[in-house]
Amino acid sequence: MPFAAPAIKPFQPPRRILMGPGPSDVPPRILDAMARPTIGHLDPAFTEMMEALKQLLRYAFQTENKLTFPVSGPGSVGMETCFVNLVEPGDTVIVCVNGVFGGRMVENVKRAGGVPVVVEDAWGEPVSLDKVADAFAAHPDAKVLAFVHAETSTGAQSDAQALAERARRHGALTIMDCVTSLGGTPVLIDQWGIDAAYSGSQKCLSCTPGLSPVTFSERAIAKVRARKTPVQSWFMDLNLVLGYWSGEGRRTYHHTAPINPLYGLHEALVILAEEGIENAWARHRAMHERLKAGLEKLGLRFVVPEAARLPQLNAISIPAGIDDAAARSRLLNEFNLEIGAGLGALAGKIWRIGLMGYSARPENVDYCLQALQAVLAEQPAVAASAT
Amino acid sequence: MPFAAPAIKPFQPPRRILMGPGPSDVPPRILDAMARPTIGHLDPAFTEMMEALKQLLRYAFQTENKLTFPVSGPGSVGMETCFVNLVEPGDTVIVCVNGVFGGRMVENVKRAGGVPVVVEDAWGEPVSLDKVADAFAAHPDAKVLAFVHAETSTGAQSDAQALAERARRHGALTIMDCVTSLGGTPVLIDQWGIDAAYSGSQKCLSCTPGLSPVTFSERAIAKVRARKTPVQSWFMDLNLVLGYWSGEGRRTYHHTAPINPLYGLHEALVILAEEGIENAWARHRAMHERLKAGLEKLGLRFVVPEAARLPQLNAISIPAGIDDAAARSRLLNEFNLEIGAGLGALAGKIWRIGLMGYSARPENVDYCLQALQAVLAEQPAVAASAT
Repeated sequence: MPFAAPAIKPFQPPRRILMGPGPSDVPPRILDAMARPTIGHLDPAFTEMMEALKQLLRYAFQTENKLTFPVSGPGSVGMETCFVNLVEPGDTVIVCVNGVFGGRMVENVKRAGGVPVVVEDAWGEPVSLDKVADAFAAHPDAKVLAFVHAETSTGAQSDAQALAERARRHGALTIMDCVTSLGGTPVLIDQWGIDAAYSGSQKCLSCTPGLSPVTFSERAIAKVRARKTPVQSWFMDLNLVLGYWSGEGRRTYHHTAPINPLYGLHEALVILAEEGIENAWARHRAMHERLKAGLEKLGLRFVVPEAARLPQLNAISIPAGIDDAAARSRLLNEFNLEIGAGLGALAGKIWRIGLMGYSARPENVDYCLQALQAVLAEQPAVAASAT
Repeated sequence: MPFAAPAIKPFQPPRRILMGPGPSDVPPRILDAMARPTIGHLDPAFTEMMEALKQLLRYAFQTENKLTFPVSGPGSVGMETCFVNLVEPGDTVIVCVNGVFGGRMVENVKRAGGVPVVVEDAWGEPVSLDKVADAFAAHPDAKVLAFVHAETSTGAQSDAQALAERARRHGALTIMDCVTSLGGTPVLIDQWGIDAAYSGSQKCLSCTPGLSPVTFSERAIAKVRARKTPVQSWFMDLNLVLGYWSGEGRRTYHHTAPINPLYGLHEALVILAEEGIENAWARHRAMHERLKAGLEKLGLRFVVPEAARLPQLNAISIPAGIDDAAARSRLLNEFNLEIGAGLGALAGKIWRIGLMGYSARPENVDYCLQALQAVLAEQPAVAASAT
């Protein structure tokens, strides 16, 4: 006698305007693509789509890396895929921490059996090149340098090219988190000489969350092939995943790919190619300028120094006297507008306004500024602090 | 100067009838749900949906386990989540192998640092209870018994209840793969006393692939809490995932949930609850009988002995003289019908006809039989072997 069926109705989500740290607004074209008929993961029509998707991802990453594909899981799985494949037990890994996601890298290194050497910078600051140089001087045997290009928790961008150059000088591989930068600001894998990078579908690509584009250089693949120990994760083992995604020879089943979400990512990348990646970068920049002008008029202050500010993720200090949760709740309930809260050490202190992908449009920027003005206006403390 | 944008058009998949081992046909209601507007993973409207989704999954699993939720990845990630949490380095794990997916469990045990004791049965046969009893007698210290309830590679069903009883008698936990059984044949987690189980969204639930429903008993959670070593995967560590999915106290961000696929799974489970799980089981059974009658008329033979046959996954021997790839190719190209090939040792020897979820309808069964008849009729060798 089975348990009784719960009486639960179909879910109808409210319509929101997503201006937090991701997911960003998903354009109708991508949602339509998600709803196309499901086909098999070994259907020739599908595997042809996979090849196109890889080509489109290479464009987004600005790379010729053959091993460029979307991991079947959120950005955290892309991150872990990089670490469990490229770090062997005992490997020294220099990890730059200037926010939440650098901290996660440290956890990943430890769980892969690596020995993390942590280079710390203040949250909101970019990674210090000098400190990284010092770390390499102290640990010349370091096998990997890991850093976050665009810290989603603070909105700070670091100098990926200089960091990769430093790593290469010491014979170390680089692992780069570009979850928030891909498609929003330049990510130049080949020009910078990055060995492994992971991103997410739900940021500047404006797809739904759940997929993590990754790319690996030949140097990285050589390291995976030369491992003395098996990769600890069966699902993330590149040696196995490649049998399905490589497209060389016979394609072998590894896991059932998330068919419809991949339709969505394909469409997101077609949209990016249609716009042109340089135009996408310029649009994110222009929307940032428009938002910045408005925020300054409201007396709001940026957390990140101007030179390191990500256009697509704007961290601002919550003005004194403003109740964080109450204000965000009003934005959500009265304006259907989502902005991001602070994470970790910055919880309750900052808001994060995302201008990512389809969210980076003038009407969104203006609407967000109007909503913020309305919510802050009812709090006399702000008017005072803004002068 | 960036690389040039590839000229790739939006992808329009063909319309197929999916009667392989999954993905199964996805009904329009679920595809529509996938295309609803994306909202944030911490939006109160979304977290309310998560609670409903957990309740619906408990119904599907026939359990009151609080820790019942969909892992943000395909079934292989659900599998690995069970093993990396419940197996500690040095633990002896009895693993039953009677097909591809039991073999994968062995790999998972090894990579988690466990010591697998393999109980082997022929592919197509159910797991032998006697052999499992012998294994426990030889390894009384075994901490976990792992088995596949419904082997997707062969279509054989094992006696989960008896296996779980045996494990409990020896104080071992059970890990059960019910990827292909959930929603198609009875999966009675509480009645059977299963400690950990994982499934997939794209089989008898008829959702798109990419999510893995899991459930854990209190005994399993106690084992995870009492671990002496950290879980080797950051992404799959239940101690961390729970902060987001548990719904107790403040919900903390762990990873960005795959919003739209979760809409789809919610809808799939609402459909299951509307039909009633007993009716769904009966429908799968009835469609199997209809298919069986037709296959027998065509002279086709089942691989699995009748008592262990899964109604939703019908493995049949490819008749002598039939070219496997050519026949499946004709089914796909001329009839838009996908059936499954053999995996591993059964590649080229069997076909797998799925009757899962929305695919388990009379019109599908009849269409499949007609298509098979047409394809086989042109191969005189079959007519001969069928008499």
